[in-house]
Amino acid sequence: MSEPGESRPLAIVCGGGRFPIEVARAAAAAGRPPFLVGIVGAADPAIEGFAHVWLRIGQLGRLFSTLEAQGVAEVALIGGLTRPNLADLALDWGAIKRLPELVQAFRGGDNHLLAGVAALFEREGLHVVGAHEIAPQLLAPVGPIGGRAAAPQAEADIRVGAALIAALSPFDAGQGVVVAEGRVVAIEAAEGTDAMLRRVAELRAARRLRLSGPSGVFVKAPKRGQDLRLDMPAVGPQTVAAAVKAQLQGVAVAAGTVLIAERDRLARDANAAGLFVVGFAP
Amino acid sequence: MSEPGESRPLAIVCGGGRFPIEVARAAAAAGRPPFLVGIVGAADPAIEGFAHVWLRIGQLGRLFSTLEAQGVAEVALIGGLTRPNLADLALDWGAIKRLPELVQAFRGGDNHLLAGVAALFEREGLHVVGAHEIAPQLLAPVGPIGGRAAAPQAEADIRVGAALIAALSPFDAGQGVVVAEGRVVAIEAAEGTDAMLRRVAELRAARRLRLSGPSGVFVKAPKRGQDLRLDMPAVGPQTVAAAVKAQLQGVAVAAGTVLIAERDRLARDANAAGLFVVGFAP
Repeated sequence: MSEPGESRPLAIVCGGGRFPIEVARAAAAAGRPPFLVGIVGAADPAIEGFAHVWLRIGQLGRLFSTLEAQGVAEVALIGGLTRPNLADLALDWGAIKRLPELVQAFRGGDNHLLAGVAALFEREGLHVVGAHEIAPQLLAPVGPIGGRAAAPQAEADIRVGAALIAALSPFDAGQGVVVAEGRVVAIEAAEGTDAMLRRVAELRAARRLRLSGPSGVFVKAPKRGQDLRLDMPAVGPQTVAAAVKAQLQGVAVAAGTVLIAERDRLARDANAAGLFVVGFAP
Repeated sequence: MSEPGESRPLAIVCGGGRFPIEVARAAAAAGRPPFLVGIVGAADPAIEGFAHVWLRIGQLGRLFSTLEAQGVAEVALIGGLTRPNLADLALDWGAIKRLPELVQAFRGGDNHLLAGVAALFEREGLHVVGAHEIAPQLLAPVGPIGGRAAAPQAEADIRVGAALIAALSPFDAGQGVVVAEGRVVAIEAAEGTDAMLRRVAELRAARRLRLSGPSGVFVKAPKRGQDLRLDMPAVGPQTVAAAVKAQLQGVAVAAGTVLIAERDRLARDANAAGLFVVGFAP
């Protein structure tokens, strides 16, 4: 049985990081050569290895006319974008026509913004799909991803972190938390994962935490009810590097709902540093 | 009717900041001249305006013998302390005798540590009291503390922040959060309030938040079930200064459970900066 979407042209709107490229490769390998839309100032130049166009973030009209000209029916929005200020966007006519919806989308949390952006696409007859649908092989499995498993104390920290993220779900805030020896050390909100892990490294360097030696776990999971098509949590080698600097014991991600970028390199780096990376059953 | 504790000598163990001095003044004004124990490296030299002794943080034996010699029956623990590393404490014999309880107290979150420390005092026959019992006039009232009230959007942000702090209660983590236009921007954990507000200032300077002009509220409240005798949230002029740097609209604290330091100066500074400071009914 063939999936209905398989033969329909697929576009990938590419924000920052390596994920857009990895997802594009996975789509091409699965027989769906994608059309890439690189966001100027965010996307990796490696998108030019695929059929592509570069667009600025306010060029909504040109985006939709380009996708229509390419016969695109499905769109994936992949990779990080700094949340733009609506007033800073260089809006084209197509964006200005949709200004009421844009203004509406910009009020509230990130989920709300992304849901508004997705609704804009759907209104143009485009179906928004997630990286996990195009490239399920990029999802975290249950169990060790590198060569190490979590120690019992770390397992307890993982449970605390997962419960905390679940408790924060109604607030559309962070997807990440650092728990060390039963204590919640840092909670991620608008600053993002890298800044939060840097903070933990600084607190430890300043001896503001009583931890000694590798200790603590970075736990990452989507909020309950998060639309994974739009905002899928992800970790990669830079997460491992940041966790090492924060002197953590490991990284734990919700299996099936967190993407792993550059998995081979991530596992190699984690093993070299003595860090565990595990997927936990949500 | 006289309170049973009124005539019993009162000791105040003084950490950092102006609070210990304010509480000592309030106690003296209420007819209970206190005996102050200054923690070396933390307490303000102004404690020397009262009957006092200086002690290092590991000198538990000397602390208890001093309090006994002074005939102290009630103790308040006031002011900030950097959470020490147990291994770094210069423990005296009285502390070494109590090492099992100390080790136990040092495992887990801050509430747990403080509860353990309080239990140590109670075991010596000392009754631990809170600043709010000695100096209730220092508690936040309901309503504006400076000259401004919160705008309706800010009221909504305050409700979000208060609900988030309540949701985090089981995790023994932060007492503070910044909410701006419905969005949770920062959540406090081990870094403390000052570092969290500095982070918001930095995110805004780096244009990582879409806010323009004064926007957002710093909300502070105790965790549900928090023992207020041991860890009472507090704000002061430095909170106002940090909120101004973060370009917030205001500061909101749970009435009756958050202490206000240097209230006159705080109100003056807030008015000068156009910031609101309000107490909300928890």
